[in-house]
Amino acid sequence: MAERGPRVVRKLAELRGITAEWRRAGLSSALIPTMGALHEGHLALVRLGQTRAQRTVTSIFVNPTQFAPHEDFARYPRDEAGDLAKLGEVGCDLMWAPDVKEMYRPCAATRVVPKGAAQGLETDFRPHFFEGVATVCCKLFSQCQPDIAVFGEKDYQQLCVVRQMVRDLDMPLEIVGMATVREADGLALSSRNRYLSADERRRAPLIHRVITEVGVKVRAGGAAEPATAAANMVLSAAGFRVDYVAVREAETLARCDPKRPCRVLAAAWLGTTRLIDNV
Amino acid sequence: MAERGPRVVRKLAELRGITAEWRRAGLSSALIPTMGALHEGHLALVRLGQTRAQRTVTSIFVNPTQFAPHEDFARYPRDEAGDLAKLGEVGCDLMWAPDVKEMYRPCAATRVVPKGAAQGLETDFRPHFFEGVATVCCKLFSQCQPDIAVFGEKDYQQLCVVRQMVRDLDMPLEIVGMATVREADGLALSSRNRYLSADERRRAPLIHRVITEVGVKVRAGGAAEPATAAANMVLSAAGFRVDYVAVREAETLARCDPKRPCRVLAAAWLGTTRLIDNV
Repeated sequence: MAERGPRVVRKLAELRGITAEWRRAGLSSALIPTMGALHEGHLALVRLGQTRAQRTVTSIFVNPTQFAPHEDFARYPRDEAGDLAKLGEVGCDLMWAPDVKEMYRPCAATRVVPKGAAQGLETDFRPHFFEGVATVCCKLFSQCQPDIAVFGEKDYQQLCVVRQMVRDLDMPLEIVGMATVREADGLALSSRNRYLSADERRRAPLIHRVITEVGVKVRAGGAAEPATAAANMVLSAAGFRVDYVAVREAETLARCDPKRPCRVLAAAWLGTTRLIDNV
Repeated sequence: MAERGPRVVRKLAELRGITAEWRRAGLSSALIPTMGALHEGHLALVRLGQTRAQRTVTSIFVNPTQFAPHEDFARYPRDEAGDLAKLGEVGCDLMWAPDVKEMYRPCAATRVVPKGAAQGLETDFRPHFFEGVATVCCKLFSQCQPDIAVFGEKDYQQLCVVRQMVRDLDMPLEIVGMATVREADGLALSSRNRYLSADERRRAPLIHRVITEVGVKVRAGGAAEPATAAANMVLSAAGFRVDYVAVREAETLARCDPKRPCRVLAAAWLGTTRLIDNV
């Protein structure tokens, strides 16, 4: 336990001053980009960052440009006091919490547009999502100038898109991915899990069970198509509205060459809550 | 005169090593991005960089992604031996000269897309030009991590687009613009001037004379529209094929509010050579 909470910074000029001091002192830093509503999964990312760098920055920013107008930007959970307490418990050094005005100039007109790993899957359902994610991550990296940035594998396509951006644009940092943290029953930790009713929460782990089963079948040499179709049917029968269940190449998310490492990814709605997972 | 030429670097890993050493030693650096075929205008940028930073890097890269298939990428002038000699004369520290394979991975899939200042003018005639420019400048900045980057005002819209990108994406460097260097007769120095025949070269300064006249009229309170129309007629009568003559706000390149600082910009063809200029 840290004796004091992280330093809270809301202005870019102040952030630049602190990170410049760290660099002058030869201290490495890790950025953990989040949208707040922190849970144990986020804290595991901070802890991983602490093992890899001498200073940790957790950004808390619910990014409006990655939500479509009909999505849950307004009701997305926000709990800054809780976030601050949790970051204090794990000993994070700095909480970077700009407001929307500090993040986006009113006349901002430059976007980072990812294709490749950003094509298909989430993009079929949230067409502008990764453009918003790539642009805000590019800004966060420029703002914080970390040596590494830590992302959870739970948002696996996002991790691939960010890695691709860093490679394509030669950004001077390393992207570190971390295995998804799960509840005892297999449900991936997510800020959106708090939307689930008690009944939905009980049914939610099915998504992890069915994609695990797809993974077992494909690893045993089975074809992806019938396995994902079966998974889709099981989820639909259990009351999920399935956006996709898919098997893709693990690095590029291209359609799968069965000889290369693959990833099973799924997104499905339970009531008004959209869950994603991958194995 | 420097005793020795600049260090020539062709691999990103080597560049990163050198610039990291500079940063560790507390040395600031200036980047001068060019497409080579250096002339006195470029060397003036290097000299300005030297007054503002302790180390100077000149990049030499004819960027294929900012040329359309029908444009002059293949015949764009290349003279690396001459460039190296000139950089040696002004005392530039490092020539960053990656080949296309070192600059672009075959599966690169992330682009920086500028709107705002990138809309209209050049974009009406070269639709993908600024996407190519913004993406390669973003990469050059990430590769070299300079404290400042120096651009000539001759490519004024490019300067505005790069400034906008740096502001919008919070890139940790300052963009420094430098007044256009001209021949005695007013022609802006440009690598493409060497395409001009003797007769075309004699007529080329007209573009500078007519936009200067537009500037005089507008500053005296005249409306932009008749002034640019007259300039267009004068150039056409002299055998230029005019792409545009326009008056825009100096910072945003938005359509002009006559109460704010304005810029007169023009692009026109003389034979097979496209000239641009602004005042």
